Amino acid sequence: MNTTVLLISCPDTSGIVADVAGWVSMNGGNIVHAEQHTDHHNQMFFQRVEFTHDGSRDLQFFKTAFGPIAAKFGMTFTLNELPWRPRTGIMVSKTVHCLSDLLTRSRYGDLGLDIQAVVSNHNDSRQLVEAFGYRYEHIAVGDGTNARAEQEKNVADLLDSLNLDLVILARYMLVLPPWFADKWYGRMINIHHSFLPAFIGANPYRQAHDRGVKIIGATAHYVTSDLDEGPIIEQDVARVSHRDDVAELTRRGRDLETVVLARAVRAHVEHRVLVWNNRTVVFG
Amino acid sequence: MNTTVLLISCPDTSGIVADVAGWVSMNGGNIVHAEQHTDHHNQMFFQRVEFTHDGSRDLQFFKTAFGPIAAKFGMTFTLNELPWRPRTGIMVSKTVHCLSDLLTRSRYGDLGLDIQAVVSNHNDSRQLVEAFGYRYEHIAVGDGTNARAEQEKNVADLLDSLNLDLVILARYMLVLPPWFADKWYGRMINIHHSFLPAFIGANPYRQAHDRGVKIIGATAHYVTSDLDEGPIIEQDVARVSHRDDVAELTRRGRDLETVVLARAVRAHVEHRVLVWNNRTVVFG
Amino acid sequence: MNTTVLLISCPDTSGIVADVAGWVSMNGGNIVHAEQHTDHHNQMFFQRVEFTHDGSRDLQFFKTAFGPIAAKFGMTFTLNELPWRPRTGIMVSKTVHCLSDLLTRSRYGDLGLDIQAVVSNHNDSRQLVEAFGYRYEHIAVGDGTNARAEQEKNVADLLDSLNLDLVILARYMLVLPPWFADKWYGRMINIHHSFLPAFIGANPYRQAHDRGVKIIGATAHYVTSDLDEGPIIEQDVARVSHRDDVAELTRRGRDLETVVLARAVRAHVEHRVLVWNNRTVVFG
Amino acid sequence: MNTTVLLISCPDTSGIVADVAGWVSMNGGNIVHAEQHTDHHNQMFFQRVEFTHDGSRDLQFFKTAFGPIAAKFGMTFTLNELPWRPRTGIMVSKTVHCLSDLLTRSRYGDLGLDIQAVVSNHNDSRQLVEAFGYRYEHIAVGDGTNARAEQEKNVADLLDSLNLDLVILARYMLVLPPWFADKWYGRMINIHHSFLPAFIGANPYRQAHDRGVKIIGATAHYVTSDLDEGPIIEQDVARVSHRDDVAELTRRGRDLETVVLARAVRAHVEHRVLVWNNRTVVFG
Repeated sequence: MNTTVLLISCPDTSGIVADVAGWVSMNGGNIVHAEQHTDHHNQMFFQRVEFTHDGSRDLQFFKTAFGPIAAKFGMTFTLNELPWRPRTGIMVSKTVHCLSDLLTRSRYGDLGLDIQAVVSNHNDSRQLVEAFGYRYEHIAVGDGTNARAEQEKNVADLLDSLNLDLVILARYMLVLPPWFADKWYGRMINIHHSFLPAFIGANPYRQAHDRGVKIIGATAHYVTSDLDEGPIIEQDVARVSHRDDVAELTRRGRDLETVVLARAVRAHVEHRVLVWNNRTVVFG
Repeated sequence: MNTTVLLISCPDTSGIVADVAGWVSMNGGNIVHAEQHTDHHNQMFFQRVEFTHDGSRDLQFFKTAFGPIAAKFGMTFTLNELPWRPRTGIMVSKTVHCLSDLLTRSRYGDLGLDIQAVVSNHNDSRQLVEAFGYRYEHIAVGDGTNARAEQEKNVADLLDSLNLDLVILARYMLVLPPWFADKWYGRMINIHHSFLPAFIGANPYRQAHDRGVKIIGATAHYVTSDLDEGPIIEQDVARVSHRDDVAELTRRGRDLETVVLARAVRAHVEHRVLVWNNRTVVFG
Repeated sequence: MNTTVLLISCPDTSGIVADVAGWVSMNGGNIVHAEQHTDHHNQMFFQRVEFTHDGSRDLQFFKTAFGPIAAKFGMTFTLNELPWRPRTGIMVSKTVHCLSDLLTRSRYGDLGLDIQAVVSNHNDSRQLVEAFGYRYEHIAVGDGTNARAEQEKNVADLLDSLNLDLVILARYMLVLPPWFADKWYGRMINIHHSFLPAFIGANPYRQAHDRGVKIIGATAHYVTSDLDEGPIIEQDVARVSHRDDVAELTRRGRDLETVVLARAVRAHVEHRVLVWNNRTVVFG
Repeated sequence: MNTTVLLISCPDTSGIVADVAGWVSMNGGNIVHAEQHTDHHNQMFFQRVEFTHDGSRDLQFFKTAFGPIAAKFGMTFTLNELPWRPRTGIMVSKTVHCLSDLLTRSRYGDLGLDIQAVVSNHNDSRQLVEAFGYRYEHIAVGDGTNARAEQEKNVADLLDSLNLDLVILARYMLVLPPWFADKWYGRMINIHHSFLPAFIGANPYRQAHDRGVKIIGATAHYVTSDLDEGPIIEQDVARVSHRDDVAELTRRGRDLETVVLARAVRAHVEHRVLVWNNRTVVFG
């Protein structure tokens, strides 16, 4: 059996659930998982419907056939097949824990990424990446006045050339310019090493230590042109104490960053995430 | 608008979701929340559908009208109205933390219990219960050969006389006989002070200490005739260390027991729990 | 046996631990628990030493006898007896969950508070407080130009008259003026309904909802004249999702606030908290 | 400066802390971290003292010099230097997540293991291990009557030949015979995929699913001849629901196993763990 996922956003009204369920049934599909959410404050309706079918109708057919329902309710929708193996680029700077975790999961089956290349402004993780058999591109920031802009251009060109579905910033420490972020909107996931919105910007573990918090966190979010303000996909936290200095917070935070990023990527790859109003609906 | 909850269990097959959604729509309802679960291993389908309607049709009407759908798919189903204020009896022995929490929540709105009486084999919490304005019944175990059986009979008779929907064992420390448990099957919730199935039986905090665990827990479950083996509704845990002796584990466990029981009761009162095969489906 | 707690802060140097241990031993004490912390970044040393003794020497004796050690190392120190039952005032506005929890714990032994009065700008919780047998003072904000200042003065005068060791703001929703906060510095604990420093100020659950966070929190801290910026004693968090609207976040947050405040108060009452540089050292 | 760790177990009595602190001071050491624990139930005292010194005295000197104190109080003690890079063997079967994590941490600095070899009864992870530059030994179970015993003998001989300080069972799925476990007592750490003592033995995720628990866990413990009954070093848990089938529990459990094992190994490597009475004291 083939599996297809329908993601819907539209103004809330009555009858949507029945019409969608009827449409799936009428087109030879069987709903194996459906979850909906109504944002009563904003009068918006969201739904994820996962249905199986015999494959005699393809994605293009479903997209066309769903048109009338979408028009009736003013829906934004996507239709995708499962499992999805997105062509993926990973960007990293010096710390390798998130990168290493993504490589391991991709090679040993937990995350179905089709990794095309790892891009870095440093050369530190080349050996690791090549040991896993993936392409490594070192694009450093040079010395000239426009060095940073040139590096951004080179990275952007490389990503373009790879025909990617997804870019993961696995502790890439250079801030991307707005045009770059805009270009990949909804297809670029970053891991930030704090429980946003606390400790936006640089050195969040230093900030956390100075404020004396008893809990640290990590946040995976879609990248937007507004730094650290993109829609949050996943967060998690760990308890710390006065004994933990900045180095120890950093070390403990690594385990958080690793799993939070992996969970966010997985939700994205399984078409579980809808973005609306700079927030996410993450279906279970 | 009125709100009605439909809970369904049946063998899994195709078309159920569409038929149910169509039925709700046809009968003037609008689905505001729906969640389904398929147990692929056992080929079972479960669904919770919450729908609003104008109240022109009552619960009895819906129960009758749903008959053909239920027959078609071999469904077990319930239909209930929200909010539900179940007539509730609370049973307690000496420790008051769960009891006090339930009283506070019921008086101040978090849990819509219609508390009819608190029953105890001790008299310790009478003042607290009466301060909240509820009836307190002290039914002690006497001295004779049949003292325990007599006490059980007296408690059972009292509960019968109260015409209850729900009984909560809020740290009631006497084991109920099978006939008593069977009688209240699916309507009696107990809090056990361990993360079941670890540490079944008496003195779980002593057992936890002796085994040297680093995490303790609490479990709320429906009572069955098989002690501590009933369907689990909710669990939570807390980190402990070698520093915590049995008294400290007991103290820290109280906060767990309190919230775990309250969450389980709330899920039950909102008709979110389905029991099947000694496990629960708890809809979100 | 009597139990005494010594809390020390001083510049870090060698030999402190040995000298303190020797002093306790020499004065007939036996160390039953000792924990130290060195802030290497700031070159500061902190220690909590709990020792038992036969009671033939009183607190005043120990304070005098410790003078030379304190002078040698430039120490700030306190000496206190355990258990401590601080004369406590509780301030509350309308929501009762923290208040009710503190009352229950104080009556049933988990927290050794000697509650002198509950003060509120509303009258909502009078019945609850009086049912527990405590004094309730309703000090409302009046209508005049200086109504707020007058109310603050009246509350301050009442607290003064009660000869208190500790004031707990158990969801007191009026911001205290700096002179009030300064007066109670280190002796007034507040519960804030967010994981500070995220969502400072009003309506943190509304802010959390709008930012789309996946985790909410609560923070207990000493009150300072800088709103929501005082030293953090304890924090905890809970996972939420897109399904949780502001009302649901508020409801779920209540359980967090309750336990976080109780834990912070307990740490304070057991002389486990040292404040330095607007951060706390909370000994285990 | 050199750093040395003293670990002590002895019957509880008065004066120990002062004598130990005095001894360190007298021998040119400065205590930078000290933590003690008294098991009042069993009248046992435990302490970890970390002290710096100028290196003019070596470990052997300290061991001899501590003799009189140890004799006075009937102490069992160890003295070790920090950082410690134990010669380590890792045993694994087919699943690689724990192995991959340990390799990454060892290569990139989080855990100071001096990995000598990875031993497996399967050949699946050879490529991964060799990509990291470590030795891989495939010792399969053969076909004869004594195949299992022979394989155990071969593994034991290999471990012996490597002169190891530590063996980590990173999801090694063959039960070791008692003689093997006894031989490595206190120097062999296993990760079990449940929150022990729940779900001892095979297929814990299947057991967890069948019991319908709402929380799963992982446990790192020292291996003893009593299967899954060794002293627990670290545990952690994750929330699950009815939606999670055995495959999903297994997948989610992997992240738990990975971090729980890494934390336990780290505590061991930093000489933070004392075993007594089949329980551990894990100093912070």
